[in-house]
Amino acid sequence: MTAAADPNNRAPAAVSPGHFADRLHAAITRTGVPGCIGLDPVLDRLPASVRSKKDSAAEQIERFCLGVIETVAGIVPAVKPQSACFERYGQAGYGALRRVIIAARAAGLIVILDAKRGDVGFTAEHYAAAIFGAPGAEPPGHAADAVTLNAYLGMDSVAPFLAYPGRGVFILVRTSNPGSDDVQSQRLADGRTVAEMMADHIAALGRGGGRLGAHSLSSVGAVVGATKSAEAGALRARMPETIFLVPGYGAQGGTLDDLRPMLRSAASAADSGILVNAGRSVLFPPSPEGPDFRHAIREAAKRFAADLTSLF
Amino acid sequence: MTAAADPNNRAPAAVSPGHFADRLHAAITRTGVPGCIGLDPVLDRLPASVRSKKDSAAEQIERFCLGVIETVAGIVPAVKPQSACFERYGQAGYGALRRVIIAARAAGLIVILDAKRGDVGFTAEHYAAAIFGAPGAEPPGHAADAVTLNAYLGMDSVAPFLAYPGRGVFILVRTSNPGSDDVQSQRLADGRTVAEMMADHIAALGRGGGRLGAHSLSSVGAVVGATKSAEAGALRARMPETIFLVPGYGAQGGTLDDLRPMLRSAASAADSGILVNAGRSVLFPPSPEGPDFRHAIREAAKRFAADLTSLF
Repeated sequence: MTAAADPNNRAPAAVSPGHFADRLHAAITRTGVPGCIGLDPVLDRLPASVRSKKDSAAEQIERFCLGVIETVAGIVPAVKPQSACFERYGQAGYGALRRVIIAARAAGLIVILDAKRGDVGFTAEHYAAAIFGAPGAEPPGHAADAVTLNAYLGMDSVAPFLAYPGRGVFILVRTSNPGSDDVQSQRLADGRTVAEMMADHIAALGRGGGRLGAHSLSSVGAVVGATKSAEAGALRARMPETIFLVPGYGAQGGTLDDLRPMLRSAASAADSGILVNAGRSVLFPPSPEGPDFRHAIREAAKRFAADLTSLF
Repeated sequence: MTAAADPNNRAPAAVSPGHFADRLHAAITRTGVPGCIGLDPVLDRLPASVRSKKDSAAEQIERFCLGVIETVAGIVPAVKPQSACFERYGQAGYGALRRVIIAARAAGLIVILDAKRGDVGFTAEHYAAAIFGAPGAEPPGHAADAVTLNAYLGMDSVAPFLAYPGRGVFILVRTSNPGSDDVQSQRLADGRTVAEMMADHIAALGRGGGRLGAHSLSSVGAVVGATKSAEAGALRARMPETIFLVPGYGAQGGTLDDLRPMLRSAASAADSGILVNAGRSVLFPPSPEGPDFRHAIREAAKRFAADLTSLF
């Protein structure tokens, strides 16, 4: 790592009410729920009342997401828009994503943009500016609170995102897809798996330069799938101060019992160090739509919230 | 890997004039140059004649890239637009990227979108549709010929991109940045590095389902940095049919001698199995601008082309 790229050489972000992990801690305390709703709109699955032949796909997914945001604000502390679902619709989708992020923040939700970016040097700086918003720049960028990253390129690929005070990152460690073993389960000569090696990098990075908040949780988080619970305890031991963003719960098969080994503390939701994502199970609930699609989503979000609350 | 996600279960792309590796082979044969120009426009560095206070940043970088495309078509076979440089400018930047890709294809250039995407399931399908264009969809997507991918999530993350006949992928193996050792140089218990393990996955994937073209080159390529020449011979031995997309040449320190161990054949540029990228050294040449910024770029592109041609 070059001196310039070393995040330890940057001015530390002050531990303040604006620290990402502290803001998330406060939001989880307020709702009691260590979970977020994935905004993964899929055009074919939108409720009939949102579909309209006279509107573009981007307009329809935006309208759906704005309805979901209005519905889940107050139930969960955060949402996780999936960049691909918007990028799919090109320039119009990009604009829709921006408005969805703004609406979610206005509704008091913390916004984690699921973009899984990973690049280096000025390219990574461009991604960080696009996602977090460059100060004074026009256009100002997305202004997400946090972003998911892929650090196969090394930890210098993460550094430009850490230069934004008050923002967070979640780096892929152990993902919930069947093919993830191809890379993440490979055993190193020193006995660790590739995922555990990534975990150690994250733990070390997360302790540096003002990145630990008031509750000893770091603004450098990790993505750990709920379907990998057999490995979750070992990953938690390696990353005691790391917030786990947890996909794979619900529709993908992860259960409450799969979450327990990930808990940093079972004393409170805010100190648990997990943020569990529910996507399809809340967005596209099996119950009939009724006069307002938001009703079934509200009920599904409440069930998800109650399930997570029962962990504590 | 699930059956549905296994690319071997998909209908093979026919080995035809449309096969990506064959199209690239023909384009390299036509120009004699196994190289591409990276379209990495950085606003601050644009020539004065392109800058204009009355135009948006996106308009300025688009105008610059269109000038570069017009200048390098016929000198090199391909261009590599950097998605981040356009995404940085939001919705307008996204539109500019689309028009730049269309212009490059119209100029006869093969377009490799450097987006380093990596995700799974329907999310990866959305990225593939955004980048390659979904048949009959509106908007139709970017229509790039190939894309760079990050396969930390496993080889099922690559599968949706392979469902597009005639398109190619380049998967990150060994990148040119200083921090890449953090992950890619880690030694596995079986003696391979993480990069070599990724190389083996790529070689295996690249041999399946109609992915080898008429010249025994695969539509599944690899990204191998020019600054890692000590490892390049071993990577070539593991990936004999793989086209190496090579960043890090020129401005980042890679030399012609660094390229030699990567060559699959020194008999011809088209069979060499390399596609070397030049970005800043061509886009922002040190010589004075003169009346037309394209003059210095043309000269720099010709020098780059002549250097690469001297390898054969």
